Amino acid sequence: MPYFDAASAAPLHPVAHQALLASLDEGWADPARLYREGRRARMLLDAAREAAAEAVGCRPDELVFTPSGTHAVHTGIAGALAARRRVGRHLVTSAVEHSSVLHSAAAHEADGGSATEVPVGRTGAVAARDFAAALRPDTALACLQSANHEVGTLQPVAEVAQQCREVGVPLLVDAAQSLGWGPVDGDWSLLTASAHKWGGPAGVGLLVVRKGVRYAPQGPADEREAGRSPGFVNLPAVVAAAASLRAVRAEADEEAARLRELVERIRARVAADVPDVEVVGDPVDRLPHLVTFSCLYVDGESLLHALDGAGFSVSSGSSCTSSTLTPSHVLRAMGVLSEGNVRVSLPRGTREAEVADFLAALPGAVAGVRERLGAPGAVPAAPSAAPASLTVDALGKRCPLPVIELAKVIGDVAPGGTVTVLADDVAARLDIPAWCEMRGQEYVGEEERAQGSAYVVRRAK
Amino acid sequence: MPYFDAASAAPLHPVAHQALLASLDEGWADPARLYREGRRARMLLDAAREAAAEAVGCRPDELVFTPSGTHAVHTGIAGALAARRRVGRHLVTSAVEHSSVLHSAAAHEADGGSATEVPVGRTGAVAARDFAAALRPDTALACLQSANHEVGTLQPVAEVAQQCREVGVPLLVDAAQSLGWGPVDGDWSLLTASAHKWGGPAGVGLLVVRKGVRYAPQGPADEREAGRSPGFVNLPAVVAAAASLRAVRAEADEEAARLRELVERIRARVAADVPDVEVVGDPVDRLPHLVTFSCLYVDGESLLHALDGAGFSVSSGSSCTSSTLTPSHVLRAMGVLSEGNVRVSLPRGTREAEVADFLAALPGAVAGVRERLGAPGAVPAAPSAAPASLTVDALGKRCPLPVIELAKVIGDVAPGGTVTVLADDVAARLDIPAWCEMRGQEYVGEEERAQGSAYVVRRAK
Repeated sequence: MPYFDAASAAPLHPVAHQALLASLDEGWADPARLYREGRRARMLLDAAREAAAEAVGCRPDELVFTPSGTHAVHTGIAGALAARRRVGRHLVTSAVEHSSVLHSAAAHEADGGSATEVPVGRTGAVAARDFAAALRPDTALACLQSANHEVGTLQPVAEVAQQCREVGVPLLVDAAQSLGWGPVDGDWSLLTASAHKWGGPAGVGLLVVRKGVRYAPQGPADEREAGRSPGFVNLPAVVAAAASLRAVRAEADEEAARLRELVERIRARVAADVPDVEVVGDPVDRLPHLVTFSCLYVDGESLLHALDGAGFSVSSGSSCTSSTLTPSHVLRAMGVLSEGNVRVSLPRGTREAEVADFLAALPGAVAGVRERLGAPGAVPAAPSAAPASLTVDALGKRCPLPVIELAKVIGDVAPGGTVTVLADDVAARLDIPAWCEMRGQEYVGEEERAQGSAYVVRRAK
Repeated sequence: MPYFDAASAAPLHPVAHQALLASLDEGWADPARLYREGRRARMLLDAAREAAAEAVGCRPDELVFTPSGTHAVHTGIAGALAARRRVGRHLVTSAVEHSSVLHSAAAHEADGGSATEVPVGRTGAVAARDFAAALRPDTALACLQSANHEVGTLQPVAEVAQQCREVGVPLLVDAAQSLGWGPVDGDWSLLTASAHKWGGPAGVGLLVVRKGVRYAPQGPADEREAGRSPGFVNLPAVVAAAASLRAVRAEADEEAARLRELVERIRARVAADVPDVEVVGDPVDRLPHLVTFSCLYVDGESLLHALDGAGFSVSSGSSCTSSTLTPSHVLRAMGVLSEGNVRVSLPRGTREAEVADFLAALPGAVAGVRERLGAPGAVPAAPSAAPASLTVDALGKRCPLPVIELAKVIGDVAPGGTVTVLADDVAARLDIPAWCEMRGQEYVGEEERAQGSAYVVRRAK
């Protein structure tokens, strides 16, 4: 049964499994204790730290283990911001960071700090010059992911790190999605990662703070992990994380080339075989194993269920698959279609036949959802005596219905006439302009109403 | 090889081992996802939460899993304090809480809050009336451990909880040491625990917040675990924690009775077979598996090494075994001897023969350390024409040397005369009065000097 959601959590690598088992018996004691079980635990911990540091490309004493990638991000940002409080309280991030970064920024703002989100282009990458322009004299910290977790686009980390160095701002790189594929290039200051993204166990994150970077741990004191990560160290998981990082790195180049080709095939075949689809993310500068696309007139949740029923596990950034009813902030920042969104992220070892099966099943799954929703076909010729404007009431209707309603009536107005869609679903703000772009229609704009918004579209002549 | 430090970390229970293995294959996916692997993970997580809640005696939706007991304490205290900020910023704890509680209190004070430590008696227990007296109109939260981690003494939690209810102050109970032995009685408001203390894996703590108790999560938002514990859930460890809690509870009564008897034997035999020893902690109202004693004229680190060499793993609250050079805050609060301190905490399944071997080895180990340090014997009769006062310079000498120097010269002054010990080792402040108590000499007092302190002792008549 193909599991294609490695970007959420990768299945445990066999080396992680073995290392975890071995260290359950050897590594349960407190590494701070003086007796033999404690000394053995300390040796395992030191060896794991050295292995992880080697894979990151840092000194062992620059790296601590945290209980998760999220903890690494939360504590790393808080510690770096606090240490430079005298310089200022301004934080710069990209608009497409992981929620742990953006939620840290929101907490910082709630606490009186300020934050700037650097926008991204349609592929999901920041422009290095835009990032540099956001740095201010009072900027305490900048954060940029190595690669985007939803669309796979690589960010210009080395260039941004160089720019940050030049103005003396530390750069924290969230390397959660990329560290299993290789070290992060460039002269960054802090780095975070998460073991279960590379095939390690849950319960382990990495926080690296380069020597010379100012850092002030926040929260109650705790002497473990250099005072930077409180709590009893989860040693068996730490040992498994380090061992599996080394193992996946040994296979990384070969496996990346293989998966890159499979993803290339998905990108091409999805665009060719599924009508009205937008494949998003950078086609070249991307993670090897990840591809994302959005299907017009499809709701993400139904498509996920259809694919799950056919045996394929994928995830989605569509609003209808999340508890918040807002589409993924990444898709929003890129300005691309969010409805019918599917992220495919191949775990290591994915077989060609599994991908072929998925590509064979996908067009039927999409067509099935569209049929149930009554999705419209091509825009018909305008009838004679068509009105110059029409209004569609889609209030209370969820994604993708407002867009479907729009598509159903666009043929009913005269060329050059307008359709006004009343909608209160947040996804409409993203998906109506995206539909216009895909359909060659003109998006006029949005106007707030007492209930929801009015989105105006002009029919092409 | 007997391991007698279960209070630091218990060896993994066989049920935890099995459950961890089983859920490594079933429980690695994200429980928030809609596909089959996610649904399976969600079912495992729900079942673990129900099992843990049943053992605690709470509703499943009152309990979240954290990455450690320390995280449970840090986040629980911060969330409870923040929710009652309008009431006030006063925090009450006992003086013998775990460092995670006391460090939370210190962080709260550094942030502008206030804190009161309720003192304990010589057995390590707070008096419920003293605790009640510390509650104020602006008290936002009170914290009391169920049982002390260093000396095993049970605290009057049910009575204190009742008093807290009466004045509307929530009580957080740190149940790390006792939860494996049984639920915490009384009408507490919040509870924390740590799985690796009961034989579960590292990487799992519990935070329980009773319905109706005001709670405001701090730090960056995260939707997992009801917004109370950020980061990807370490599901295999959580499953193992819940399964092992259920398993140790099933055996708890029988095993507690058995270990209680073994500890009774240690208490009696240590007092009888080791000269100049103080067995500390409540002899009756105590954890079943834990006993602590201190040996005069012995340094804890040498004794631990000697016992480790003989095959026994124990821990110590003596200053010379910690990196801080201060003796355990628990022993300090109790006002008992800290030098030559040994904590014995028996893991489940400890055999009688192992305890017998330990009791056979201990007197020789203590005598060996004393011989190397040149520890004095009984106080000799005063020589004729003995001086009325003497001063001993023990500056720069570490525990237990200042006490040994004192003991060596006490016989040289006339009865009723005084010995002044100059010392800058922090342990002297605790150990010189404790020595006087054990030796029937009079402790006159301490006077600060430019370097260290002068401790004055009057020879008994």
